[in-house]
Amino acid sequence: MSKSPEEQHPVKAFGWAARDQSGHLSPFNFSRRATGEKDVRFKVLYCGICHTDLHLLKDEWGFSMFPLVPGHEITGEVTEIGEKVTKVKVGDKVGVGCLVGACHSCENCTNDLENYCPKMILTYNSIYMDGTVTYGGYSDHMVADERYIIRFPDTMPLDAGAPLLCAGITVYSPLKYFGLGEPGKHIGIVGLGGLGHVGVKFAKAFGCKVTVISTSPSKKYEALNSLGADSFLVSRDEDQMKAATGTFDGIIDTVSADHSIVPLLGLLKSHGKLVMLGAPSKPLELPVFPLIFGRKVVSGSGTGGQKEIQEMIEFAAEHKIAAEIELISMDYVNTALDRLAKNDVRYRFVIDVGNTLPATKP
Amino acid sequence: MSKSPEEQHPVKAFGWAARDQSGHLSPFNFSRRATGEKDVRFKVLYCGICHTDLHLLKDEWGFSMFPLVPGHEITGEVTEIGEKVTKVKVGDKVGVGCLVGACHSCENCTNDLENYCPKMILTYNSIYMDGTVTYGGYSDHMVADERYIIRFPDTMPLDAGAPLLCAGITVYSPLKYFGLGEPGKHIGIVGLGGLGHVGVKFAKAFGCKVTVISTSPSKKYEALNSLGADSFLVSRDEDQMKAATGTFDGIIDTVSADHSIVPLLGLLKSHGKLVMLGAPSKPLELPVFPLIFGRKVVSGSGTGGQKEIQEMIEFAAEHKIAAEIELISMDYVNTALDRLAKNDVRYRFVIDVGNTLPATKP
Repeated sequence: MSKSPEEQHPVKAFGWAARDQSGHLSPFNFSRRATGEKDVRFKVLYCGICHTDLHLLKDEWGFSMFPLVPGHEITGEVTEIGEKVTKVKVGDKVGVGCLVGACHSCENCTNDLENYCPKMILTYNSIYMDGTVTYGGYSDHMVADERYIIRFPDTMPLDAGAPLLCAGITVYSPLKYFGLGEPGKHIGIVGLGGLGHVGVKFAKAFGCKVTVISTSPSKKYEALNSLGADSFLVSRDEDQMKAATGTFDGIIDTVSADHSIVPLLGLLKSHGKLVMLGAPSKPLELPVFPLIFGRKVVSGSGTGGQKEIQEMIEFAAEHKIAAEIELISMDYVNTALDRLAKNDVRYRFVIDVGNTLPATKP
Repeated sequence: MSKSPEEQHPVKAFGWAARDQSGHLSPFNFSRRATGEKDVRFKVLYCGICHTDLHLLKDEWGFSMFPLVPGHEITGEVTEIGEKVTKVKVGDKVGVGCLVGACHSCENCTNDLENYCPKMILTYNSIYMDGTVTYGGYSDHMVADERYIIRFPDTMPLDAGAPLLCAGITVYSPLKYFGLGEPGKHIGIVGLGGLGHVGVKFAKAFGCKVTVISTSPSKKYEALNSLGADSFLVSRDEDQMKAATGTFDGIIDTVSADHSIVPLLGLLKSHGKLVMLGAPSKPLELPVFPLIFGRKVVSGSGTGGQKEIQEMIEFAAEHKIAAEIELISMDYVNTALDRLAKNDVRYRFVIDVGNTLPATKP
């Protein structure tokens, strides 16, 4: 008989979990493994709330395992290291993003793209090498192989920096991979949520001309004035859309609600690239003519490899990029998730785990 | 009142045209412009029949102009040159592909990508700079600006080489642009028609491992033995498809009939590229997950720029690549088009215009 989450490992752990697809979170006692020779254990101080947490809490993708402790934008302070760990020492500021394991021998892994390894192990709701379920950062501490530990520069805040571990790398990686994050390129960012607002900051730091594309004219002021976008395009305004036809080198689409990409293809120059980061539940309808007569590219991208995450964090620190966050206490998390489902957040919730989780212990 | 096709230009011309969307071709007297200072005039000797001819003859894309003289895989011998022409001399073997004009000032044109210029002028069924309709190579002679003239190396046959001007460049260009035409890359070619069979030859010449993907097991012998493909995958065989999951660097899809691309996405490695060259009438259904969790690319490609066509013809001559053709007489063209609509050709019809068109003159 398999052991309970509280008994299967030697180290006691405490967090908040959903017990079923209602997605409602509540206090949860479980356990984590002892610190292996290549492992780093750290006290969780902050954890961002990603839209993926919402999808998985409600089992919208059909592979959720309950009880489920979400959280893959995790930062904190190292408390213990295994004897072979060289990357960090006790007291260092660190983070863990979406992954805690992969095969380390396939073509993707050898190219530092663990995030595309077919055997990648997600930070939560995944089966670890020891056969147990992984639990995320809505919890008091984490333990992970040092390959999956990101060092945080001194100048990077642990609260506003936490969302960079998922939202940040998810926009940074395609801007680099598709050759879009270059001076003078005209980049569109569709959707001004957790990913989109950080996308504006990275694209600007790369020297791009950045246009935010949104259904909501109400976001214009903030896009231009707080986030530094160069222009704003209301996607429901046909005149504006027509005037912008064929002017974009690339568009980063962060919207996970079902929507048509046909108007976006029209905005691209020939050889322009549309990169989908949100995961609409229905397949996209993709006309072939814009692909053939403009060699336009439709693709997607999912987070980034460990090496690139470290590079991104250092680039962000250098350019003073972090997320705009609303810091919440642990016991506000269910309300925050409800608000996130309605896009009622500017722009990322981050849980103050270190200060507020202990008080919720039964 | 606008002049008739026979009267609008000073030089008499003769070809075969469709008068309406029945697509039925019959003898047609028209005219072509005098040789301008940068123009090259040539006697048409051969013209390939492209699937596009069929689409436009039947007005399947809704922008056909009748009378319509098709043909954009045209080869022949120079008979007259303008005083400023430097590229060729009288008697040279030349060809004209899909284009006869473009703006020559936009970003695409300045990058030798006239084929993506928004003002590109197609070899037929397009409006030329003088306001008259362009007529293609199912005709006794052509006249074109020297930029649109391709020099044929001595070793390249004018009959079997003609289809390279559209089918050839259409597969060559994406293999180069998307980084697929490289030694060791595993390339799939979907559909073994006019484009597909030349695609196999180019991909092999680039050093790729080539797999033909087809619904018809009957094409296996020829694919492997005549065309030199390395392997053959029957797309309707679920076991074969499953075994090939995640093994392709790129897939060139030449099929213009409506079909699902989802199984093809499954064949790609992460970061693999699916390039659509056929133009199915319905939009594709594109699931987003394979894009995000494998950073797979869906794109398309349409012919190539003039510089690349010249490069391709020279590469083909060097590697002894030409189309496999069925040479037909002009008066067989309607039958040939019927057969093409049923994919009953291995692999490209070429009209022996030089020898058989004059006999059809009323």
